[in-house]
Amino acid sequence: MPPLDLLADTLGPQGLLRDAGDVAPYAVDWRGVYRGHPEAVLRPASTAEVASALRLCADLGLAVVPAGGRTSLCGAAVPIEQGPPSVVLSLERMNRIRALDPLDLSLVAEAGCTVEAVQVAAEAAGRFFPLHFGAQGSAMVGGALSTNAGGIRTLRYGNARDLVLGLEVVLPDGRVLDDLRRVRKDNSGYALRHLFMGAEGTLGVITAASLKLFPPLLKRETALVAVRSPHEALRLLARCQGSGAELVAFELIGRPCIEITLKHAPHVRKPMELSTSWFCLVEAASTHLSIPVREALEAALMAALEAGEAEDVILCESEDQRRNLWDIREGFPACSRQEAPGLPTDTAVPVSAIPDFLESCGALIAERYPEGKMVAIGHMGDGNIHLSLQAPPGTTHADWARRGAGFEERVGEIAVELGGSFSAEHGIGQSKRAAMAGLKDPVTLSVMRAIKDVLDPAGRMNPGKVLPPP
Amino acid sequence: MPPLDLLADTLGPQGLLRDAGDVAPYAVDWRGVYRGHPEAVLRPASTAEVASALRLCADLGLAVVPAGGRTSLCGAAVPIEQGPPSVVLSLERMNRIRALDPLDLSLVAEAGCTVEAVQVAAEAAGRFFPLHFGAQGSAMVGGALSTNAGGIRTLRYGNARDLVLGLEVVLPDGRVLDDLRRVRKDNSGYALRHLFMGAEGTLGVITAASLKLFPPLLKRETALVAVRSPHEALRLLARCQGSGAELVAFELIGRPCIEITLKHAPHVRKPMELSTSWFCLVEAASTHLSIPVREALEAALMAALEAGEAEDVILCESEDQRRNLWDIREGFPACSRQEAPGLPTDTAVPVSAIPDFLESCGALIAERYPEGKMVAIGHMGDGNIHLSLQAPPGTTHADWARRGAGFEERVGEIAVELGGSFSAEHGIGQSKRAAMAGLKDPVTLSVMRAIKDVLDPAGRMNPGKVLPPP
Repeated sequence: MPPLDLLADTLGPQGLLRDAGDVAPYAVDWRGVYRGHPEAVLRPASTAEVASALRLCADLGLAVVPAGGRTSLCGAAVPIEQGPPSVVLSLERMNRIRALDPLDLSLVAEAGCTVEAVQVAAEAAGRFFPLHFGAQGSAMVGGALSTNAGGIRTLRYGNARDLVLGLEVVLPDGRVLDDLRRVRKDNSGYALRHLFMGAEGTLGVITAASLKLFPPLLKRETALVAVRSPHEALRLLARCQGSGAELVAFELIGRPCIEITLKHAPHVRKPMELSTSWFCLVEAASTHLSIPVREALEAALMAALEAGEAEDVILCESEDQRRNLWDIREGFPACSRQEAPGLPTDTAVPVSAIPDFLESCGALIAERYPEGKMVAIGHMGDGNIHLSLQAPPGTTHADWARRGAGFEERVGEIAVELGGSFSAEHGIGQSKRAAMAGLKDPVTLSVMRAIKDVLDPAGRMNPGKVLPPP
Repeated sequence: MPPLDLLADTLGPQGLLRDAGDVAPYAVDWRGVYRGHPEAVLRPASTAEVASALRLCADLGLAVVPAGGRTSLCGAAVPIEQGPPSVVLSLERMNRIRALDPLDLSLVAEAGCTVEAVQVAAEAAGRFFPLHFGAQGSAMVGGALSTNAGGIRTLRYGNARDLVLGLEVVLPDGRVLDDLRRVRKDNSGYALRHLFMGAEGTLGVITAASLKLFPPLLKRETALVAVRSPHEALRLLARCQGSGAELVAFELIGRPCIEITLKHAPHVRKPMELSTSWFCLVEAASTHLSIPVREALEAALMAALEAGEAEDVILCESEDQRRNLWDIREGFPACSRQEAPGLPTDTAVPVSAIPDFLESCGALIAERYPEGKMVAIGHMGDGNIHLSLQAPPGTTHADWARRGAGFEERVGEIAVELGGSFSAEHGIGQSKRAAMAGLKDPVTLSVMRAIKDVLDPAGRMNPGKVLPPP
């Protein structure tokens, strides 16, 4: 039987897409940057079907590219352009919440549940799932864990991997690794689940996860603070951390980001006079109505004003006002794409190094890319600033990519020089393989390769991703 | 040159113990249960010396048993009795705090710092390191991370691995894996550090760690609550979790544990009439004086009393009273050893399964070990109950170990049947290798073995630990 017929036989009519028109959307990433040539799309509906599919692909010598919501920012979920014969394995049909226990504060979700679906299920049970990022409506649990997604609440709740109690993984040879526990403590051997989280599908396929839930946030207080410099932002962060208000987000926003969003998002209102270059979007929350979050946050903000360490403050009076601030923050990436081509980056440095990081990047731009404009926004509480080099009006994407060559790499180097990481939360995928080769500790790289070789000796799992060519 | 002379040459006079009297303390575990026969003790003073020592041991074909404070409860830090020629590699001289940044909330400690030394250093900088367990005064960072230690604050701050931002590890062949970052987000490839944490020295030697700090706890409120059953304890936990008071500990204590501690610890006072079989030691805390922790906790406890779900409550009025409650809790393990031989266990189940777990264990004892007495104490908020089978008065340790054969294994099975783990926080070491073979998912075990083989192909790192014989 021809290979695709064998797969069709195993996965059923709904489980295999082979018509060019059906396969096409899975062959290209959402930004249109990365394009591959999968032979077909497998859509298994259960862990057993994933296992069968992987065994069959092993027999057929087909590479497998696992995919979830396919909103990766690094091209992780589409086959590489010049890759071996491959199929995309979409987890989209595995979208059940298998269990939810409010008392244990845990939930078991299949890989194809969207992050938002998990949030909704938790909320319906009076609980809270904190993972929160722009693409949460499309991003699926399997992808979010495979890239160890971050987002705006890492500050309080950690990254995606920190929210996991257990995993179910299908290995490249089709064996099922069952570590789907719901316990908070389990010291029985090597913590294998952490290998698969962040591996971007290069070591196996995550099919389900046991996730931590939290008590719901009953009160939220949100503020926008105009500060004169990243140094002032840093002092404000320290003030807020010591205020008694539990911080759940602390975002740094450069003035150009607000201006761009105001220009392109018609429903967004100007929150205050934009009299300074930097703004902090601060959110504190509480799981109980008796906690004086507002008072604590307000006291910290007023103290900053009085100390001359902040220029202006808005503490939201309504959910509408709060929503507007978040629309500015979360609307920026899309508006930025409308404004002009950009060269976005994703780095992290120790929080205290953020001012130095921004200064060095500013100097880099002034010296080597003077026609570009620095726009910076990000998760300051995690040291994770998304800095982009914005093209002058009228530049095409292709032209800007050429003129900005080396920018992303150099920003990554600056982060590493400051003790940070050239890849904070978006992952490596295809886009940062070269940076991996240049910036990652060689011993670490060689151990990664050894582990890849032992779990996937034929190199069939998501080839051309994460690990640089040897 | 003879092997030990070569090592002496590399490590200097302070770096090698070879006299029988000097080596003896490293050859036996603190409880006197496990005894090995190391040829010498290596005491390197730097990462470079650890690397040299491991290279030399590789050349000489010597097995290496890494050791820290040597307060392991599973025999992880002493060579096995019938093992290959080995040396103990003690990290005790690597005891520097390399860096501390209050703003980044991070600290870099060498493996030989005690957990308490890290707590003290953090406190001196106005910060808080939350890892807290009985042996913290002797346990060292390297050992605590190698066993992924738990303790009483896991409920709020996670296990040891959750407190780590980066690691420095010397691999079995002497290469240094440098992942000692201080950033909160780093998605650049496989999360190797999680492999070494919990590996109990079988994959390499942790030489330093970058650790998370937290704002200090400025207010602590502590209560003892008498409840009639584990079911009531569970309801109390849910009440407290929903109270708005941030829980930092929720311990379940069986009445016999309090009675035993009162009997053997002369400075401990009876906290209340012991009119019920179970007690909950609850601690809530806040990082700011403005947070009404006491009011919130008190309201939850009063509501439990009014609902008839608690029999009696003490909310501490003084630090002295609080200290007394913790002396009962933390004094129990030592007092229990004075009282009678016991067969302790270390399991975890989903929190909601604790009543079933205790009932099943009670039934097991009634049926198969009727002369023994169940004593149970533990970290209820994590589902981690330390249940022990206490011998009748006058029984010897050896006799009780024989008569209680199979008890620990069966309790582990009960935990696994309830969706839990047979090893919650103490690790596997020598003591649970058989349980690993019987209770761990075979696919998981085979992947662990494959990773062991690739990192330590000669099997020289802490042989006879963690992984069961193939």
